[in-house]
Amino acid sequence: MNDAPRTYDVIVIGAGPVGENLAERARAAGLSAVIVESELVGGECSYWACMPSKALLRPALARADAKRLPGLSRAVQGPLDTAAVLARRDDFTSHWKDDGQQAWLTSVDVDLVRGHGRLDGPRQVAVATADGGTVRLAARHAVAVCTGTTAALPPMPGIADINPWTSRDATSAKKAPRRLAVVGGGVVAVEMATAWQALGSQVTLLVRGDSLLPKVEPFAGEMVADGLREAGVDVRFGTNVAFVERDGAHGEVRLGVEGGARVSADEVLFAIGRAPHTGDIGLETVGLKPGSWLPVDDTCQVTGVDGGWLYAAGDVNHRALLTHQGKYQARIAGAVIGARAKGEPVDETPWSPYVATADHAAVPQVVFTDPEVAAVGLSAAEAEQAGRRTTVVDYDLAQVAGASLYGDGYRGRARMVVDLDRGHLLGVTFVGPGVGELLHSATVAVAGEVPVDRLWHAVPAYPTISEVWLRLLEAYRG
Amino acid sequence: MNDAPRTYDVIVIGAGPVGENLAERARAAGLSAVIVESELVGGECSYWACMPSKALLRPALARADAKRLPGLSRAVQGPLDTAAVLARRDDFTSHWKDDGQQAWLTSVDVDLVRGHGRLDGPRQVAVATADGGTVRLAARHAVAVCTGTTAALPPMPGIADINPWTSRDATSAKKAPRRLAVVGGGVVAVEMATAWQALGSQVTLLVRGDSLLPKVEPFAGEMVADGLREAGVDVRFGTNVAFVERDGAHGEVRLGVEGGARVSADEVLFAIGRAPHTGDIGLETVGLKPGSWLPVDDTCQVTGVDGGWLYAAGDVNHRALLTHQGKYQARIAGAVIGARAKGEPVDETPWSPYVATADHAAVPQVVFTDPEVAAVGLSAAEAEQAGRRTTVVDYDLAQVAGASLYGDGYRGRARMVVDLDRGHLLGVTFVGPGVGELLHSATVAVAGEVPVDRLWHAVPAYPTISEVWLRLLEAYRG
Repeated sequence: MNDAPRTYDVIVIGAGPVGENLAERARAAGLSAVIVESELVGGECSYWACMPSKALLRPALARADAKRLPGLSRAVQGPLDTAAVLARRDDFTSHWKDDGQQAWLTSVDVDLVRGHGRLDGPRQVAVATADGGTVRLAARHAVAVCTGTTAALPPMPGIADINPWTSRDATSAKKAPRRLAVVGGGVVAVEMATAWQALGSQVTLLVRGDSLLPKVEPFAGEMVADGLREAGVDVRFGTNVAFVERDGAHGEVRLGVEGGARVSADEVLFAIGRAPHTGDIGLETVGLKPGSWLPVDDTCQVTGVDGGWLYAAGDVNHRALLTHQGKYQARIAGAVIGARAKGEPVDETPWSPYVATADHAAVPQVVFTDPEVAAVGLSAAEAEQAGRRTTVVDYDLAQVAGASLYGDGYRGRARMVVDLDRGHLLGVTFVGPGVGELLHSATVAVAGEVPVDRLWHAVPAYPTISEVWLRLLEAYRG
Repeated sequence: MNDAPRTYDVIVIGAGPVGENLAERARAAGLSAVIVESELVGGECSYWACMPSKALLRPALARADAKRLPGLSRAVQGPLDTAAVLARRDDFTSHWKDDGQQAWLTSVDVDLVRGHGRLDGPRQVAVATADGGTVRLAARHAVAVCTGTTAALPPMPGIADINPWTSRDATSAKKAPRRLAVVGGGVVAVEMATAWQALGSQVTLLVRGDSLLPKVEPFAGEMVADGLREAGVDVRFGTNVAFVERDGAHGEVRLGVEGGARVSADEVLFAIGRAPHTGDIGLETVGLKPGSWLPVDDTCQVTGVDGGWLYAAGDVNHRALLTHQGKYQARIAGAVIGARAKGEPVDETPWSPYVATADHAAVPQVVFTDPEVAAVGLSAAEAEQAGRRTTVVDYDLAQVAGASLYGDGYRGRARMVVDLDRGHLLGVTFVGPGVGELLHSATVAVAGEVPVDRLWHAVPAYPTISEVWLRLLEAYRG
């Protein structure tokens, strides 16, 4: 063991997409950087979240689209070839090997230390390596925590013994369980219910509340519930799971619901939320509480830590639990760290290159269900809570020619929230098949604060689903 | 025959989408309006262009998408059910009946006169009706010509005798010809080649020049040519058709190509361009040349006509031969006519509600081929011709995670043209499967003149194809 620490300008803990991008941006600013990772370089997104989940979902959604098209529908009535879908998923996760990601780090000249990184006082990180040793690192300028989150499990007696699925199992499973119970009503729950139902499981979705996707416009969750039911998912609201038991490690799972109902399944996925991955990263050595989210300012600097050397980007700061938004923060934090290291001024006014303004105003999200949900900015309720004077405009996507051409029986809805004082949009939500790529038009409009008067000159091509923009503007004009 | 003319504030000649929208906007401004139509209310777009062509293409593109997805691909190797696709197309054209459109006119309180409308001196229109009569109309404020275009045929001896297909036949045919020759290399040619090849025809595409889609970025035409060839279309460049002959009215067609080659087919589609539908609308009575395009200013007022009472919107003014852009002009012209009738000021500065600025800066177009082509604003060549100081940024869409998830072997490309002096985008082009709905993001950015610095805050959702925006910005940053 070498007691003299290796010194870098920047130390990044966690080599998911966020950590990778932050390190790369720090390097681009001329700083030396090292990244610490205890698992696979590439992180949750590459191996157990975005990539595998979308690889599972894409054929399911393409089949749902094809089913709505006379002339093609008859050919796709049969089930998906599950083995082929899983094999493709395996390719997208690089078979859970990180050689490619490691090579990328090398290509951008960021050092990698494999092992469990813990803060060890200001600007110090101790990495416990697999061989039982410790690598000590010291940062001249900054340490950035990019450790993300882990799946939360309910505090239920015996839950650890029943081998529950979390998002990791749901995205990496090697075969479809005959019966899958999914506990939760958020994005992971609805996406995985969609995927495994299409891949051959009989899915039961157990939702504690009375709606799905509670963070977006209410009609989104309603339409997704309809879609899940039509795909064959047994969707049950108001079901609070009281206990769970299993016959042996891999036998039948039985869930007991408050009120007495019982659900049997071959696997159970708990998708009830995320917990910050900060329980064992030495937060206590710098005066922070282990297991807590790390609050940051708009430059991604952790608040409440002396010396301004600690940053946190991505899920762990709890601003927006989305890979793309974490990468956005990473680009900004990397630039901030670079500028501050060189003593350059850091413009902290909104929308400057050094502040993550979009975290407040324009966080986009696509939920890859059937129908898809695509939302950016504030919902109507959020805008009202924020005290904005708004008009909320809705439009039935089925009335748009491009949507009805997209597939027979098209159902969807669009909403835009107009800020009456500022004259631009605060938020936009689209629900419907094929709306995922439409979202970025809204993201540009919201983040760009494009005046509604100007949006009239942004003509949607006919006949695309995008024509809903014209309909929304016409409805707003009223 | 009643010699006293019926007087309206506004007379619109041509009840396609453009005429309909213009009349509706004039009504909304408080003016009385009448619309004259000799064919079906709803126009080319509804019956012989956008709607039927996209109804033919959508199943073909959905099948192409499905073929690129392991787990689904095996199911869709067979041909489309052509009869089912054609039946769906028939539904989208309302079986070539215009009751619904007529009812819409009634609902917005616009009168309809069926018959052939001709200008008859300033502010006068004479409509020759089917019963041999004439309805005389007089306009208090404006006459708007919205007669669109017709398919151009080459000046070739005997062409009228061989029953050639034009876009109308190609979109309304009741069965797939065994062999279809398509002459042309523009949008109609490549879309109809795509559709009919997928519907069972063996298509030969005869292109006079050496590229397809000459009006957009060159790589678009190249990728579409590759896609057509892979679908089985025989694409031949540099083929100038010298003569055409046919055995009887419906026998085999033989085309002779300069240089000696012969092509045999069961039908031949000429898609070589459009001609203004102004040959017999009385232009000579107001000092204009029959058969000419009608040049307009940015308020859509025809230039060179005394009194400022004549407007032209849509294809016929030759600004942008696209339904959605014509409707945009119609909204503007209707508002202009309304304001001028009331003596209200008409702001003619760029991007005002009264000028069609987007016609110069931000015309979007989607070509529904495999791959799709989606472009808005200026191409690199157009920007250079316009003397702008630009940087052109390209990105390979296959490198975008969302694109590779969309389908195996994804091929596509994106380009953005940055105005270095203004700091915003002049044009964007996407080519690839599934990019159609992505276009509106670019249209908002270009029409909104959103600064590139701000576009960094418009975060694309991961993993969508839209992430190409981030890659383009990164490539621009360099």
